Amino acid sequence: ISGIHRPAKLVIDQQAIFDNVQQAVKRLPADTVLWAVVKADGYGHGMLQVAQAAAAAGATGFCVALLDEALGLRQAGFDQPILVLGVTPANQVTLAAQQRISLAAPDAAWLQTAAATLQNSTAPLSVHLAFDTGMGRIGVQTVAEVQAAMALLRQAPFVFDGVFTHFSTADEADTTHFNQQVQQFKTLLAAVGQRPRYVHVANSATSLWHQACASNVVRFGVAMYGLNPSGDALPLPYPLKPALRIESELTFVKQVPAGAAISYGATYHAAQPEWIGTIPVGYADGWQRRLQGFHVLINGQACEIVGRICMDQLMVRLPEKLPAGTKVTLVGTDGDTAISLQDVASFAHTIHYEIACGLTMRLPRVYLPYQA
Amino acid sequence: ISGIHRPAKLVIDQQAIFDNVQQAVKRLPADTVLWAVVKADGYGHGMLQVAQAAAAAGATGFCVALLDEALGLRQAGFDQPILVLGVTPANQVTLAAQQRISLAAPDAAWLQTAAATLQNSTAPLSVHLAFDTGMGRIGVQTVAEVQAAMALLRQAPFVFDGVFTHFSTADEADTTHFNQQVQQFKTLLAAVGQRPRYVHVANSATSLWHQACASNVVRFGVAMYGLNPSGDALPLPYPLKPALRIESELTFVKQVPAGAAISYGATYHAAQPEWIGTIPVGYADGWQRRLQGFHVLINGQACEIVGRICMDQLMVRLPEKLPAGTKVTLVGTDGDTAISLQDVASFAHTIHYEIACGLTMRLPRVYLPYQA
Ligand SMILES: Cc1ncc(COP(=O)(O)O)c(CN[C@H](C)C(=O)O)c1O
Ligand SMILES: Cc1ncc(COP(=O)(O)O)c(CN[C@H](C)C(=O)O)c1O
Repeated sequence: ISGIHRPAKLVIDQQAIFDNVQQAVKRLPADTVLWAVVKADGYGHGMLQVAQAAAAAGATGFCVALLDEALGLRQAGFDQPILVLGVTPANQVTLAAQQRISLAAPDAAWLQTAAATLQNSTAPLSVHLAFDTGMGRIGVQTVAEVQAAMALLRQAPFVFDGVFTHFSTADEADTTHFNQQVQQFKTLLAAVGQRPRYVHVANSATSLWHQACASNVVRFGVAMYGLNPSGDALPLPYPLKPALRIESELTFVKQVPAGAAISYGATYHAAQPEWIGTIPVGYADGWQRRLQGFHVLINGQACEIVGRICMDQLMVRLPEKLPAGTKVTLVGTDGDTAISLQDVASFAHTIHYEIACGLTMRLPRVYLPYQA
Repeated sequence: ISGIHRPAKLVIDQQAIFDNVQQAVKRLPADTVLWAVVKADGYGHGMLQVAQAAAAAGATGFCVALLDEALGLRQAGFDQPILVLGVTPANQVTLAAQQRISLAAPDAAWLQTAAATLQNSTAPLSVHLAFDTGMGRIGVQTVAEVQAAMALLRQAPFVFDGVFTHFSTADEADTTHFNQQVQQFKTLLAAVGQRPRYVHVANSATSLWHQACASNVVRFGVAMYGLNPSGDALPLPYPLKPALRIESELTFVKQVPAGAAISYGATYHAAQPEWIGTIPVGYADGWQRRLQGFHVLINGQACEIVGRICMDQLMVRLPEKLPAGTKVTLVGTDGDTAISLQDVASFAHTIHYEIACGLTMRLPRVYLPYQA
C-alpha cells in the first residue's frame, strides 16, 4: 500500500547538478579538485542523488556537516574522500577513522581528546585543521594555537591531511573583511610548516568571484544546485542551472461571494465574487507562512496566495474558473514566467539556502536522471 | 555503521501526549469521541509515536491531511477510523476504500468523479462531507450544494459517514466570525436530512473555548502536543504539558578579541573579549535564521544567539568559559528558566505550529515512553 499519492512534488534535475559541476571543474586550475558539499540532505535536494551526479561530473570528494551524513555516504557505497566540516564530538572519532572519514579539528584541545580516544584504534584518523580567520565559528585563531595543534597533529594516531578556512563575506561586493581573512589565512598557514595534501578556502562564492589563495580544493555547495550564492547581489561569471522545481495541482476550485473570508484568522476577504483554488502544499512542507501574498504560477500566470498559509494547504485567487487537477508551479518555469528559489527567499526575507533546506521530507522527491 | 552520533536531539515525551489526551477525553460529553490529529508527522513529533500514545489515552480515531499519511498509519497496524482532511485526488479513492480510510468530500463534482473511479471497487468508500462555513478552504458553501452532494452520497459506492466544518477563528477572543460559522453550519446541516454517524466541528481551540454545536467528534491537534492553540492570546481552561524539547551541547568554545566578527556577513562584532560557544544546530534543522538575537539556555542562563544562524551551526555568547560538551537547551526547561515553542514562535513572528512542523528529519528524535 505504500508509494506516493500526493499531487505535490519536488522535481530534482540531476542533469542540472551534473552540468553545474562539470562547468566548475572545467574552470579549475590543473592541480585543484572539486568536493561537492552535500550536507543537509544535499541542501534539500537529496544527498545521495546529488552525490551521484556530482561524482559523475568530476567531483572527487564530498563535504558534509555531520558524521552521520558521512556515514550515510559510505553506507551508500561512496568511496571518495569525505570531510566532516562541523565539530565531531571527540568520543566518536574511532568510527570516523574506521570508515576513512576525515574530520575537521577545531583546536588542540579537541585533538588531545581525540588522541586519547583513538589509543586502541587500528586505523589512524585523517584530520583537516580548521583556521578561524574571521568567520568566528570553529578553528584556531592564532599562530600559537596553530603550533599547539601541529605538535599533536604530526604524530600518530593522526594523518595530517589538510588545513582550511571559511570566508564569511565572499558573496559580498565589499571585499574588506574577505581580504583580512585571506591575510590571516596566509599568516596561519605559514605557521604550519610543511603544507598538507589539501589546503582549501573556497566555497561557491569564493570560487566564482575571487582568486583562490594557494588552495587546491574547492568546497562547492550552493552553486552546484544552480543558485547564485549572493542571491542577486553579484552577477554570475557563467550561467548556472537551477536543479529544483516544485509542482502541484489545484485540488479544489470554487467561487466565493464578495466579502467571503479565506483561511485562518479571516485575514483576506474577497473584494468581489472570486474564483479561489486550493493547493495541497503548506508550511509543514516548508512553504513558509510568510509567503502569504506571494504567488504561484498557473497556465503561465501569477496567482496570489490569499489568506494565511495552512499546515497542508494554501489558497490562491484564480483569474477564472479552472478545473481541479490544473497544474501549479510553486518554483520553476511555466510558459514565459518563472519563480526562482531566490524570488521565494526575497519575499520571505531570507536566503534561498534556507528555503531549499526547509523543504521537508513530506514533499515527495522525483529525480530526473543525468546523462554523463 | 548506522545509528545517531549527533549531539543534538528532539526529545518527545509520549507521557505528555498521553496525559493531554486523557485530560481532554475526561472532559468530553458522553457521546463524543476524540480523534487525534497526527498529520505532518504528528506536527513534527512523529506520527506513529504520537498515534500510539494518543490511542492508549483514549483517542478512538485519527485525522491526517494526506492519503499517504493515512496509509502510513494503516501500514503500522493502526486499525481505528482514519479521516483524510485534505482533498484526495478522486482517482485514488479505490485505495482508500480498500484500506477503510475515510475521505473528505469537498463537493458534488468530486463525488461524481470518485463514484466513476469506484465502479469496480469491491469495497465502498466512507465519506465525510466538508462544509465550508467561512474557512474558505474546502467544502460545500450553500444548501443547494449540500443537496447536490447528498443526492450522490446516499447511494453506492459511498458510505455517508460524516459531515464536518472547520473554524478559522476559534482561537481568537472576538467570536463574531466564529458565531457566523456556527450559524451557517446549522443551516447546512439541516439540509442533510438524516444525520450521519459522525458530525464534527471542533479543533483544539473549539474544544477548549467554545460550546460544541451538536457534534460528536473532536479533532484534537495542537493541544495534544501541549500547546495553546491561541499562542498566548487566550488562557487555557486546564493545563497542558508540552511534549517536545530540543537539546544539544556546545561543540566548541573559544574566546575572541574585541571587534571579532561572528558568522556570515560579519553582522555581529564582539564588544569586548567574549567567550563564544558553537552549537551544532542550524536552519537546515528548522532553527530559522530569523532566530538570530534569540537565546538558548545553558546552566540555567539565557545566552544570546550572535551572528547569523548557519545551515548546521549557530553561535552564542557565553557568560564565561565553559567546556565543550556542556548541555544546551533550545526548547525546554533548564533550572528556573524555560524556552517554550511559543517563545520561539513569537520571536520569529510566526505560530508554534510552524516551528514544530519545521523541525526537519535531520534532527534525531528520542522518545520517552508513556505509562498507561
Ligand atoms: C565550511 C564550508 N565550506 C563550504 C561550504 C559551501 O558553501 P556554499 O554552499 O556557499 O558553496 C559551506 C556551507 N555552509 C553553509 C551554507 C552554512 O554553514 O551555513 C561550509 O560551511
Ligand atoms: C480540518 C482540521 N481539523 C482539525 C485540525 C486540528 O487543529 P488544531 O491543531 O488547532 O487542534 C486541523 C489542523 N489544521 C492545521 C493547523 C492547518 O490546517 O493549518 C484541521 O485542518
